[in-house]
Amino acid sequence: MRYWNSWGQDGSEKPHFTKTAKAFLKETVGEGRIHPEASLEDVCSQVSPSRIVADHPLVSKDAEVRVRHARGQSFPDWVAMKSGVFGSFPDAVALPETPEQIRELMDFARAEDLDVIPYGGGTSVVGHINPVNEGRPVLTISMERMTRLLDLDEESQVATFGPGTPGPMVEAQLSARGYTLGHYPQSFELSTVGGWVASRSSGQQSLRYGRIEQLFAGGRLETFDGTLDIPAIPASAAGPDLREMVLGSEGRFGIISEVKVRVQRLPRKETFIAVFFKNWDYAYAFAREATQRKLQLSMLRASNGIETHAQMKLAGSEKLINLMETYIRLRGADEGKCMVIFGITGLPGQVRSTYWQVSKLIWKYRGVGLYGLGKQVGKIWEKGRFKYPYLRNDLWKAGYAVDTLETSVNWSDTRPSMEKIEKAVANALKDEGEHVHAFSHLSHVYTQGSSIYTTYLFRLGENWQQTLAWWHKIKKAASMAVVECGGTISHQHGVGKDHAPYLPFEKGELGIKALQTLSDHFDPDQRLVPGVLLEKQP
Amino acid sequence: MRYWNSWGQDGSEKPHFTKTAKAFLKETVGEGRIHPEASLEDVCSQVSPSRIVADHPLVSKDAEVRVRHARGQSFPDWVAMKSGVFGSFPDAVALPETPEQIRELMDFARAEDLDVIPYGGGTSVVGHINPVNEGRPVLTISMERMTRLLDLDEESQVATFGPGTPGPMVEAQLSARGYTLGHYPQSFELSTVGGWVASRSSGQQSLRYGRIEQLFAGGRLETFDGTLDIPAIPASAAGPDLREMVLGSEGRFGIISEVKVRVQRLPRKETFIAVFFKNWDYAYAFAREATQRKLQLSMLRASNGIETHAQMKLAGSEKLINLMETYIRLRGADEGKCMVIFGITGLPGQVRSTYWQVSKLIWKYRGVGLYGLGKQVGKIWEKGRFKYPYLRNDLWKAGYAVDTLETSVNWSDTRPSMEKIEKAVANALKDEGEHVHAFSHLSHVYTQGSSIYTTYLFRLGENWQQTLAWWHKIKKAASMAVVECGGTISHQHGVGKDHAPYLPFEKGELGIKALQTLSDHFDPDQRLVPGVLLEKQP
Repeated sequence: MRYWNSWGQDGSEKPHFTKTAKAFLKETVGEGRIHPEASLEDVCSQVSPSRIVADHPLVSKDAEVRVRHARGQSFPDWVAMKSGVFGSFPDAVALPETPEQIRELMDFARAEDLDVIPYGGGTSVVGHINPVNEGRPVLTISMERMTRLLDLDEESQVATFGPGTPGPMVEAQLSARGYTLGHYPQSFELSTVGGWVASRSSGQQSLRYGRIEQLFAGGRLETFDGTLDIPAIPASAAGPDLREMVLGSEGRFGIISEVKVRVQRLPRKETFIAVFFKNWDYAYAFAREATQRKLQLSMLRASNGIETHAQMKLAGSEKLINLMETYIRLRGADEGKCMVIFGITGLPGQVRSTYWQVSKLIWKYRGVGLYGLGKQVGKIWEKGRFKYPYLRNDLWKAGYAVDTLETSVNWSDTRPSMEKIEKAVANALKDEGEHVHAFSHLSHVYTQGSSIYTTYLFRLGENWQQTLAWWHKIKKAASMAVVECGGTISHQHGVGKDHAPYLPFEKGELGIKALQTLSDHFDPDQRLVPGVLLEKQP
Repeated sequence: MRYWNSWGQDGSEKPHFTKTAKAFLKETVGEGRIHPEASLEDVCSQVSPSRIVADHPLVSKDAEVRVRHARGQSFPDWVAMKSGVFGSFPDAVALPETPEQIRELMDFARAEDLDVIPYGGGTSVVGHINPVNEGRPVLTISMERMTRLLDLDEESQVATFGPGTPGPMVEAQLSARGYTLGHYPQSFELSTVGGWVASRSSGQQSLRYGRIEQLFAGGRLETFDGTLDIPAIPASAAGPDLREMVLGSEGRFGIISEVKVRVQRLPRKETFIAVFFKNWDYAYAFAREATQRKLQLSMLRASNGIETHAQMKLAGSEKLINLMETYIRLRGADEGKCMVIFGITGLPGQVRSTYWQVSKLIWKYRGVGLYGLGKQVGKIWEKGRFKYPYLRNDLWKAGYAVDTLETSVNWSDTRPSMEKIEKAVANALKDEGEHVHAFSHLSHVYTQGSSIYTTYLFRLGENWQQTLAWWHKIKKAASMAVVECGGTISHQHGVGKDHAPYLPFEKGELGIKALQTLSDHFDPDQRLVPGVLLEKQP
């Protein structure tokens, strides 16, 4: 069963939280502060009666169901789930099974004057699915019963899914037929295909498979003005692309009720390899050139020196790390070394040819190719790629907070942006006498630039209010640094409520007005997730 | 100088119109009907006084300038240019040099209550830039003085251009610095980077370089509500992509005043090769598998049997054709054979590896690889790739009409769609006792499907009215066939006025309303190219 107050589900394998990791944390940000956690029963007992009077066969007002759909996975959500102070809950949760039932529920919402929150995997880290207490009663419509592969056109490689299909069910249903979507965000275990589209998601192997923008072929959007049917056409010059209106709309224009995606044959061969470079200059040059030369890599991730060091300390396999450290030192890279992990996926001939081309480039930038060891590290990364979020709970229990943020900028801006963001985060609690440890990597590389993904660690506060206040300080400093760098406020997590104040820096006043115009058009009463994407107008 | 009443410019090399070609035309659609052509002087003398009273230093009311900006390259445009019956002209033409001057001209248009037509290369084949006589006076704003490479960020591979930069000037300015955009629509010689964005253009090597959607990184759009500045960010999850609002907006939301595009280093190696397959089944299977396997081809074009035959007859080099025909016959492909041309572009290692992979696939589908001959045919194609439009004038002078149409559909729909469209075109003038000769190829291939590009030939009518009426009949039959197949009404030519009635089949009522809402938002008085993209509301 899914955990009600942390990431993931019971029985899932988790990474080890080692003594070395604990010592590293203590050294960098101080002794952890451990707090008791609220129980599910406590929280359920807080739930006030639903403000929705009418009943509907698809709608539940059960307290536990409402608790389990009240929060996502953002840092404030964790503070709420751990402290038990939720503040608000949806007034009811609906579980439709068909697009028609979604329409029926939207009619119900209009008749009863409710706000509506579409709910996919509940993995938002920016407050997409959190109800607010003020205003209309809130009906959360969860897609958890719409998880089927509805159609697969093998000739055209187009699959149709229910919007609530989570990552593992997408891949299981496809691989049974010999196909894959290849969309692997870190939230893969729980996030859904409808959620990916709504929030413009990007997977770890987007270099091969593309972002969700490239994978989303069409589908259905249920709006308050009717159903928008988007035909799956390979490409078109017939006016602005309606798919692009849905992608990233985060529920503000309608509810995604069916998703067609571009799939492909399961790859014959796939490998992930770790390489170390002497310093950032070399790692950066390698990453940029590999991308701009269009080597057929499936992913590329370049950790800066601080992240490489932190990963070594936080990773589970101490024996392997020691072996690696020794080897790397012998080969001349040491302090300041940067780890790059890349993947190659495809037909055997393609993988061989790409491996040869990338080897030449590693050589050019004096990378320490680890041969057997590099492949072993790559395998560890592959195995653990969806497991890192589980570590957050171990850290919390040891008294530490961890969060991440991300942006994307042009290549020429990556270095100054990364430094500025890390500095803003590291110094955000200086006046509180607390240190924040921040480190970054580039991933999701493009010929034009790259995403920058920054992780930061700090101690929990004396109480949940302080912890939350600290986080808000860090988040604000980081977000301002991002927009000052000209980066996007989100490369893969979306906007939600947390990023909405920063969206105008990117879209401009005119752009925001255009999006609001569309939202008003499709949802004239503004019932759909108010405050998400576009801040409430005063 | 540019021709005032046909494609292209003086001094440009043209393909040969051979005796074999003439005989082929006579045999398939009958004896050509030759008509006299109007002179530029005749047409200039028809131009009535401008309805714009006020003067502006950037605005010209000269008759010849107005004639030269009155029509594009659609079939009805050709009928007008050849017969001299234009019907309407812009009331004035403005030639701004900066985005600020565009804004100034838009203010002028508002003050004088004018409609505005943005004009790029004037190569529209669907009536984008044609003024109408009814309603407000018309100011055409031509971008022909905004043709400079304004900035090149070599590290991020982003170039900034004036919107009026035509293809050859884009490539010349980039190649001087070692870069290329790689966007090669057949209109390359005259069409402009701003026009490509406005009409969602696709180039012949889109398989490598991407459609203009993938190349357009950001820029400026001058709207009646202000300037929409779209920052060039590699990728973003921050709400719907504003670039996608501009792409395909065809001037209805604003005037593109600056374009940032993603460029790359000039390729080290490039080759185009022709191969023949026994019949369509084999050619189709080869094309689909090469694409879905993600072989690193830069282009792929598969002609059906009728097109392969027609190309042999219409092509210039009779000696080479004869040689090829003999060789192909010896190798077992003959009647019904289909020609596939593909390109490989990149670093020498990539080209070698791709060549090897594609060779295996040609072998699998028993393609007749022509070795030296195939490369020679590929070279001829490469050399003539932007020259085919010149042939239209030779055909016209011989009494024949030629036009093209295109769509895109999923792979599983390609064969029935191609057949249905060709049949609709071929039979469109049956009740007039005229035959239309139609043939097609697939190009712009995607893992999901392909574009279908159909060319058709017919005799001119007894007079221009009959020619135009015949064309309208064909166009209607073809367009209805396209929408009945579920194809897009345009894969690369855009919507303009000619396709606007068919757009609702693709976008749905809701989609059209959403686009109209945006148009009303950015252009509340609806001054910008009324009737284009979205039909005038009654």
